[in-house]
Amino acid sequence: MSRESDPAVTEPVPSPYRVPFDGSFDIADAPTEPPRDAPGKKDAKRRLEDLTEELSDLQRILWAQDDHAVLLIFQAMDAAGKDGTIRAVLTGVNPAGCEVYSFKQPSSLELDHDFLWRTSRRLPERGRIGVFNRSYYEEVLIVRVHPGILDSQKLPGRPDLETLWQQRFESIREHERHLARNGTVILKFFLHVSKEEQRERFLARLDEPEKNWKFSAGDVRERGHWDAYQHAYQEALRATSRPWAPWYAIPADDKPFMRLQVAEIVVAALHGLDLRWPEVDPEEKARFDEMRAILEGES
Amino acid sequence: MSRESDPAVTEPVPSPYRVPFDGSFDIADAPTEPPRDAPGKKDAKRRLEDLTEELSDLQRILWAQDDHAVLLIFQAMDAAGKDGTIRAVLTGVNPAGCEVYSFKQPSSLELDHDFLWRTSRRLPERGRIGVFNRSYYEEVLIVRVHPGILDSQKLPGRPDLETLWQQRFESIREHERHLARNGTVILKFFLHVSKEEQRERFLARLDEPEKNWKFSAGDVRERGHWDAYQHAYQEALRATSRPWAPWYAIPADDKPFMRLQVAEIVVAALHGLDLRWPEVDPEEKARFDEMRAILEGES
Repeated sequence: MSRESDPAVTEPVPSPYRVPFDGSFDIADAPTEPPRDAPGKKDAKRRLEDLTEELSDLQRILWAQDDHAVLLIFQAMDAAGKDGTIRAVLTGVNPAGCEVYSFKQPSSLELDHDFLWRTSRRLPERGRIGVFNRSYYEEVLIVRVHPGILDSQKLPGRPDLETLWQQRFESIREHERHLARNGTVILKFFLHVSKEEQRERFLARLDEPEKNWKFSAGDVRERGHWDAYQHAYQEALRATSRPWAPWYAIPADDKPFMRLQVAEIVVAALHGLDLRWPEVDPEEKARFDEMRAILEGES
Repeated sequence: MSRESDPAVTEPVPSPYRVPFDGSFDIADAPTEPPRDAPGKKDAKRRLEDLTEELSDLQRILWAQDDHAVLLIFQAMDAAGKDGTIRAVLTGVNPAGCEVYSFKQPSSLELDHDFLWRTSRRLPERGRIGVFNRSYYEEVLIVRVHPGILDSQKLPGRPDLETLWQQRFESIREHERHLARNGTVILKFFLHVSKEEQRERFLARLDEPEKNWKFSAGDVRERGHWDAYQHAYQEALRATSRPWAPWYAIPADDKPFMRLQVAEIVVAALHGLDLRWPEVDPEEKARFDEMRAILEGES
């Protein structure tokens, strides 16, 4: 990948949690807890409020300018906090400028297409922030852990599994390059929760009646595949963190800290764009005086 | 339409601005200004904040319960304040539970379908609040004012115009009855701005550089058809305000008042639903103890 063809819309936002672009990411070394000098919960919440206001203002210009789309992808183990983070970071943004899709089990119509089809239909238009709660990455995560799922995908001339994952990584990289080349800012967040923290959150879902509906026995079954999932995440992040579509592995054991990190990165990425209120077309502008005269003449 | 077959999901929310269901709406009598005893701007803003928080809480239950969808339709003359109202009322709602679509000029693909097709694809799923910024009502509004548009729609055996509008009203009524019968709460808002107030807002768009991009010379041209539009709105509201899909003609000359009215009606409609956190399926619940034992046994 030569620097010349690097299609990054904006410089990738630096962060201690950015996954390196050279394939050296080691998930066992990636923290799930905030650093010691992290802001306290109260400070984190206050700073998050400021950032969501800033994000709301930036999105208004993004919308008026209509040059870029923003795509935020969230992946994580169950109970890491995807839903809550999406809510906390984006609730202040004008809903007309924001769209969130949660991808669950694919329908049979979706299975009759290639694995990038169903998410492609939901990509954000220019001016909008699109959020994928899960995404095509499931195709190299849950499917990698449970390769039996591939049988429902009717792949012609299916190669051996290792080749298949490499091919999928290539498809994903090229797909994201294409989107970036055409003006989409892509930011990917892996909310990295520890196994112990997930255990405690599952227990809370069992114990607190108003969290009960979020619990499913299947979640505990999936937990049995913890190491296989961690390996799948590591491989996926290594293969697909690139300057035009960086991954951030955000410590997820502390929710206010996690939400703040995500908000900081999203706001910084938008600041990296050359956002400005659009200039009116000179020809149109020339007619403004005429229009003003008509309107003023009415009274 | 007998009372037995009335599919209203919830009792239509009363309001002084609700358009009667008997076809007696007179647009010339409908106020564009708040009543004298309306709350001041500051009080209106404070009350709106409370309502948006309430709406956010109600939507969370709507989502968890997954029984109903909510569809809000906004129609208005230019500069009446659709965008700002949608933003003000819905910004506090979790964007994962809310989707806003703005319908502009139809594409040629959309024109190759019946006039309800393109909006149908964007209907909100259960658990979500969907917002249409403009809608299929344009088919009896702008198209009624400019019937030349019909030529692009290739209607077989096109009847005379008066019959055509009546047929469209019938299609719309039946479409909305069908949606209501299947669990969608429909609320329709006509933001009713005066001709003088529109004039002042257009002049502001011409005079304030950061509003310039919102202005188009075509808007002043459309203003020339004011009376024809008012007539078209009156006819559409008369023909399609029904208990399962009521119209509200909201005075739009005062923005905080307008936004507050819309929020009050939306929140009241959600209160009219039997919203509650879902109970977990007893069979699933029986397995909770087993799951708890597994998780507790880990430590």
